[in-house]
Amino acid sequence: MSSQPRIAIDAMGGDEGVRVMMAGVALARRRHEGLRFTLFGDETRIKAALDNHPNLRAASEVVHSATIVEGSDKPSVAIRKKSSSMSMAINAVKSGDAGAAVSAGNTGALMAMAKLALRTMPGVDRPALAAMLPTLGDNDVVMLDLGANTECDARNLVQFAVMGAAYARIALDLERPRVRLLNIGTEELKGTDEIRDAAAVLRAADTTLPFSFDGFTEGDKIGRGETDVIVCDGFSGNVALKTAEGTARFVADLLRRAFSSSLRSKIGFLISKPAMHLLKHHLDPNNHNGAVFLGLNGVVVKSHGSADAKGVANAVHVAARLLEEDITRRIAADMAGVQDLSAVASKLELPVK
Amino acid sequence: MSSQPRIAIDAMGGDEGVRVMMAGVALARRRHEGLRFTLFGDETRIKAALDNHPNLRAASEVVHSATIVEGSDKPSVAIRKKSSSMSMAINAVKSGDAGAAVSAGNTGALMAMAKLALRTMPGVDRPALAAMLPTLGDNDVVMLDLGANTECDARNLVQFAVMGAAYARIALDLERPRVRLLNIGTEELKGTDEIRDAAAVLRAADTTLPFSFDGFTEGDKIGRGETDVIVCDGFSGNVALKTAEGTARFVADLLRRAFSSSLRSKIGFLISKPAMHLLKHHLDPNNHNGAVFLGLNGVVVKSHGSADAKGVANAVHVAARLLEEDITRRIAADMAGVQDLSAVASKLELPVK
Repeated sequence: MSSQPRIAIDAMGGDEGVRVMMAGVALARRRHEGLRFTLFGDETRIKAALDNHPNLRAASEVVHSATIVEGSDKPSVAIRKKSSSMSMAINAVKSGDAGAAVSAGNTGALMAMAKLALRTMPGVDRPALAAMLPTLGDNDVVMLDLGANTECDARNLVQFAVMGAAYARIALDLERPRVRLLNIGTEELKGTDEIRDAAAVLRAADTTLPFSFDGFTEGDKIGRGETDVIVCDGFSGNVALKTAEGTARFVADLLRRAFSSSLRSKIGFLISKPAMHLLKHHLDPNNHNGAVFLGLNGVVVKSHGSADAKGVANAVHVAARLLEEDITRRIAADMAGVQDLSAVASKLELPVK
Repeated sequence: MSSQPRIAIDAMGGDEGVRVMMAGVALARRRHEGLRFTLFGDETRIKAALDNHPNLRAASEVVHSATIVEGSDKPSVAIRKKSSSMSMAINAVKSGDAGAAVSAGNTGALMAMAKLALRTMPGVDRPALAAMLPTLGDNDVVMLDLGANTECDARNLVQFAVMGAAYARIALDLERPRVRLLNIGTEELKGTDEIRDAAAVLRAADTTLPFSFDGFTEGDKIGRGETDVIVCDGFSGNVALKTAEGTARFVADLLRRAFSSSLRSKIGFLISKPAMHLLKHHLDPNNHNGAVFLGLNGVVVKSHGSADAKGVANAVHVAARLLEEDITRRIAADMAGVQDLSAVASKLELPVK
């Protein structure tokens, strides 16, 4: 890796185009002065966009890529596009030219490419997609897996707990994050075998873990701020995340309808506008943008396709923080604990090796 | 069954006590003049509560029960409480004395008892818990399973689609409901084997089904009003339902904070109050109270433990409608179609028998 931390940017991925991606990266650069960037994509368009951001231009290298991964490309098709901006950005991490990659492109393709190029780190069977969700508490909550693995066994869930806690220690600046497994009840007997077995292992190993395992949580508690990390399989996580997004939008739509239902409510809206602005700010997904693939030999961050410049800046900030704090090394160190967990599991006669 | 439709009420189940249950049943009775009730529970307390509801008293028989199923009782413990109000209410359906039972008690216990006493109807392997959720469209949406079956195979999901559509035809008054499977993407290759196989069977059989199968939907679409029935396994359904409830409460809490953040916003709130009332009404879970166990030889409706009188009335209304429209017979008739689905499945060489 070069002496200064460098982030590889897939400039072509977002729905909002190269200009928004560049504006976002430029915004992030202000927060991380020492960062350098390699920008992969259509050279002409990137250079045109950089005209508005001389500071970013000074900190960047532009590398032309001939093709683009489309939103509709199946992962199997995408991984063959070796000269795509996405593939080149990930390969920059693989070669060590960059410490992290950020893309706003096709999630399935990004995941497949990242896994293939970077491989999972020792002790990790499968990477997981983690993101921050807003809560009513002081901190956001880290949730994983959000869709990288449709089905997970107990061993995967235990590893996700370790990886999610490492992420929370860095991103939320917590010494001993509180970790829970997502379930359909809080009693020990609830849920699938996989969840119960994972809980048994974590419970038995609790004091030796670099986090506090607090048992189960449920869908209605995700935003309560009672826990720092929520672990689940990718199917449930994806359902929960999308349901939360959909419900927040649903309530916002109802609110809009209510405010426009009469002259009186319209006046009330005008007066309440600053307060509504606070609400909007809290719910704006751009403020939580940047999902991370944890468990790979390198940092890959997914920016939401529809993110604005502020959102892209957040995703780049996430990548920068994880790079600065060397998340890969920290997860690897924590995974040493997982080796002990295996002993716990075999003592409990559980199928978690 | 007696000549007039009769509903068995577990008067002891709700967190809010016998008085609220009785007030709710009395409210429902006004909507369904011909209904009769058998009220199971502590005779003294029920009779005291009935003093406020002479019309209900005239339409009811009170049967004393000696014990109560506690919220903390495991299903295995609960089913042995034969003289509990819950057990007696379900057994009234089994014996034919009542056409439906309504309880606000322990969901796991209610499910176990109902399954044991009433058994699944021919052609149905497992019952499912179905409920209505609010949408931005003209109709509510029926969602099932919401927690009766932690894991489901393709055959279960296909049967849930048939049962959910029968429920939607009655409760939403739709001739040909639109049915979708909950998934983590809308492309054919997304999701688990179970979901993909169920979709293949339903897709192949579409024109012969008493509903329109429209493929997959995702968590963020639940409230959009684009579909009438959403089918999923009980784990995902429970996660989605609770996440939606939690997020709605989360946004409401943020809204409350926003409105109380300054004098100006407090004034705005006072002016907007009627509009906010509309919003509150739309989101009030009492307006959607009453989850149904579908697929049993008899109607059993679960009222939420914290429902108020209006909520209890809604649950009783749901039971009354399903009884009037003979949901059990209608599902049995639709299940004839499932026999053909088995042929489709074997032609497709899918594990759905």
